[in-house]
Amino acid sequence: MMNEKRAVFVLRVGHRIGRDERASTHLCLAARALGANGIYYSGQKDEGIEESMRKVVERWGGDFFVKYVKEWKGFLKKWKEETGGKVVHLTMYGEEIGGALERIRRFPLVLAVVGGAKMPPEAFSLAEVNVSVGSQPHSEIAALAVFLDRYFEGEWERKGFVGARLRVKPNKNGKSFIDVE
Amino acid sequence: MMNEKRAVFVLRVGHRIGRDERASTHLCLAARALGANGIYYSGQKDEGIEESMRKVVERWGGDFFVKYVKEWKGFLKKWKEETGGKVVHLTMYGEEIGGALERIRRFPLVLAVVGGAKMPPEAFSLAEVNVSVGSQPHSEIAALAVFLDRYFEGEWERKGFVGARLRVKPNKNGKSFIDVE
Repeated sequence: MMNEKRAVFVLRVGHRIGRDERASTHLCLAARALGANGIYYSGQKDEGIEESMRKVVERWGGDFFVKYVKEWKGFLKKWKEETGGKVVHLTMYGEEIGGALERIRRFPLVLAVVGGAKMPPEAFSLAEVNVSVGSQPHSEIAALAVFLDRYFEGEWERKGFVGARLRVKPNKNGKSFIDVE
Repeated sequence: MMNEKRAVFVLRVGHRIGRDERASTHLCLAARALGANGIYYSGQKDEGIEESMRKVVERWGGDFFVKYVKEWKGFLKKWKEETGGKVVHLTMYGEEIGGALERIRRFPLVLAVVGGAKMPPEAFSLAEVNVSVGSQPHSEIAALAVFLDRYFEGEWERKGFVGARLRVKPNKNGKSFIDVE
């Protein structure tokens, strides 16, 4: 694991097949690239997203997972009890991230909850912190990205994805790959 | 304007109606919430996105715009000539943002280019900087979010959206609005 002192898991509530595939895929890719360990999602079970993320991990390494949970409130309560982790709900209605970050960074284990358009009130009461990345209409993908970057203080940049078949060689001028195999 | 010393515009290349509506809407919302002035897009002209962003601005304030450009390479060259601004291409193949940021922050005016799946090689050669937010398969929405947050050093948090009809009152426990009218 990239940083043994800190770990973030993501819970995405209310995924709908047809409408949310691309946004949820973006959310998974962002979570993985920016250092989260895995994503749980509720709503409709979607084999397509699970399969496409398995392929990403197979090629690009690491052990990021995507897991369906049927009933998110029960899952969240159990996760808190079993792990002792804290829940951070990303919402445009929460307190501002600038002020909340120091407190959140004291949590070594975080479940970051992101929702769809309408989150039930329980999401607010079950969370240790309700945090907003700009109190404006937003993208949950962007909010999660800023949250992860700040929580890890950019440490995801030094992350190695173990077992990658393919790596990008950072390049000022264009595409270059390192074929690991 | 939030920060008179710095301004970012976004160019999103290759929008496709049907496939990209939600991702492009997320990109617009993220760009606006995190301090960009407006977004240009090429590909297929999409009245739906333009209209939905007009409504967001009408309600939530500011002067963020969405404008279609027919031919993005010509637009980009002309933009550089006319404004003296610099082009930052966000791509998983570029140099890492950690190392490039200090250089980029010296540019007071930036056009951040984000692409679809396949960006033509000209995107790399026309840009002053090709920058990667993690050399991993990524979401361009997340990459733009991290870029804007770091470029503005979180200054978007102190941004006021002039002319808003509605504002969120940041709240630890749930939803609350301020009705400006």
